[in-house]
Amino acid sequence: MRRMGEFDLIRRVFFRTTPAAPGVLLGNGDDAALLAPAPGRALAVSSDMLVAGRHFLPDVAPQALGHKALAVNLSDLAAMGARPLAFTLALALPRVDEAWLRALAEGMLTLADAHGCALVGGDTTAGPLTLALTVFGEVEPPRALRRDAARVGDDVWVSGVLGRARLGLALLCGELALSGPAAETARTQLLRPLPRLALGQALAGLAHAAADVSDGLLADLGHILAASGVAAELDVDALLREAAAPEVRALPPATALSYALAGGDDYELVFTAPAARRDAVQAAAVRAATPVARIGRIVAGAPAQHPLADGAGRVRLLDAHGRPYPLPDGVRLAGFDHFATIAA
Amino acid sequence: MRRMGEFDLIRRVFFRTTPAAPGVLLGNGDDAALLAPAPGRALAVSSDMLVAGRHFLPDVAPQALGHKALAVNLSDLAAMGARPLAFTLALALPRVDEAWLRALAEGMLTLADAHGCALVGGDTTAGPLTLALTVFGEVEPPRALRRDAARVGDDVWVSGVLGRARLGLALLCGELALSGPAAETARTQLLRPLPRLALGQALAGLAHAAADVSDGLLADLGHILAASGVAAELDVDALLREAAAPEVRALPPATALSYALAGGDDYELVFTAPAARRDAVQAAAVRAATPVARIGRIVAGAPAQHPLADGAGRVRLLDAHGRPYPLPDGVRLAGFDHFATIAA
Repeated sequence: MRRMGEFDLIRRVFFRTTPAAPGVLLGNGDDAALLAPAPGRALAVSSDMLVAGRHFLPDVAPQALGHKALAVNLSDLAAMGARPLAFTLALALPRVDEAWLRALAEGMLTLADAHGCALVGGDTTAGPLTLALTVFGEVEPPRALRRDAARVGDDVWVSGVLGRARLGLALLCGELALSGPAAETARTQLLRPLPRLALGQALAGLAHAAADVSDGLLADLGHILAASGVAAELDVDALLREAAAPEVRALPPATALSYALAGGDDYELVFTAPAARRDAVQAAAVRAATPVARIGRIVAGAPAQHPLADGAGRVRLLDAHGRPYPLPDGVRLAGFDHFATIAA
Repeated sequence: MRRMGEFDLIRRVFFRTTPAAPGVLLGNGDDAALLAPAPGRALAVSSDMLVAGRHFLPDVAPQALGHKALAVNLSDLAAMGARPLAFTLALALPRVDEAWLRALAEGMLTLADAHGCALVGGDTTAGPLTLALTVFGEVEPPRALRRDAARVGDDVWVSGVLGRARLGLALLCGELALSGPAAETARTQLLRPLPRLALGQALAGLAHAAADVSDGLLADLGHILAASGVAAELDVDALLREAAAPEVRALPPATALSYALAGGDDYELVFTAPAARRDAVQAAAVRAATPVARIGRIVAGAPAQHPLADGAGRVRLLDAHGRPYPLPDGVRLAGFDHFATIAA
């Protein structure tokens, strides 16, 4: 095997094309990239780190890993209503395996190309398998979908269907047995989520607040509620009927509800919009070719907290008659806690 | 020990103050931060990853680690002539040790505050100790110090002194024995480098090309030469007399030269500027309170390559009489290769 330098590795595998994205004045190779958002627009910036054995299994298919690592970052841009512009990748690898790297790059760059998102820089080093991405998008600041902008009287909406990635995880871990197309769909949702970028941009300037459902509906809606100083009532019937995946609805009711409320990794958008704009929200969903479901409403709540505070306790479940509905056993109020096992 | 959630951890230790930096429209806590460079300015973006056991010893003092992780990233902004604006931090930790984290944050945020650089987002997860930072700065694109802008006839300059961090490493590894203030200075340069931000900004629009000396003078000047399609002649006498640290000059001549040419981690700037602007360069150095030394000149060379290509072979050493000077034994032409040991 020939000696492969760090620079060679980055250049040959990841920087296969010269990015010509508008807004990218200088791409990879210099001390820094130069990005220029269009006049009147700000740069939305989000960073995520994925660690082998924690966020993915070390033997995951590299193409799926490349896709998902970028997808979860683009999902943050979707939740701001931003248009993707560029990203950087920092990569620690236990060994140099060019075929593995090519497949990782293929999965990542196929998704990047689909959204006009240029790889503008990065860092590669030996170390335990870890990916750290930072994504950049453009948005007009007054139209950005912030977490602190939910208002009493807003509807609560969710895109697509919930619980499917959690079902995929249950299949992967052997918690449940299921085969056929439903199992395949669930696995695909877990391994290759599609960030809701078109919907996020269609909702910019229309919806009030938004977050992506990465840790589970209760946890991520909770962040909106905490940041906005409000609470929410969710209709369990509407949630299960219109927002839970059909194969999730087919599970025992308590399991189905727990998957819809607390299953993470779906990367759908949860958002709030004025009740008077329901038709406009539906029109935006049609333009974005993305189904949306209305599952509740924003009501008065405790004063605003930091947007990273745990706000899941601000969610109240109601049945079809408007009566309180108990949280299913086993549904944790907080989202997935990466430190729960080591700091308990 | 009480249960500590991921969000709590980030918020309490790192987000101790609300950033009020101009250009930061929305800081941490949302799906993405919002950054708006001033009109006419672009955002300079750079990402670096530091892995325990590879870039630092696992038992390094956390305050020094926090300082250095940000310093090496700010150094990339300095090399673009950019003014720091903000940064994100992704952190993988094997365990939650609040005292250790507070010290890490202290080292990092003290440097950040000194440069008005706001922490605007991040990610924390369990995993092998790894830090991935992305820094953002502002620069007017025509004034940015790019690697591809060196021109035949330019002088080659370097800031501060070279080889000191390499000496610090030799002391740390027991390769050399030395005590007293010189040893202390060398260790400090290795553990707590100060990025040359004031000089970079003073040189923006004046110098042609620049890079920071992270991998060693030959390697980093080599990137400028490759990207610009030129070569360089360096005066060994001027380099040792004016740009090598005094305690490095005191070493055997071959060791001194090898430290100055190939010692990494100094985080000085190497830059090129028109010979007609020597007085302006000296005035900029005075304004930035940063010594600079003229160590050579840009001459014609092979056609331009990718800016990450190995261009160290484009550097020719000359003695005081203009005669070729041999490269000291043991000086690798390429910079430090993070994969050399695993891909050989």
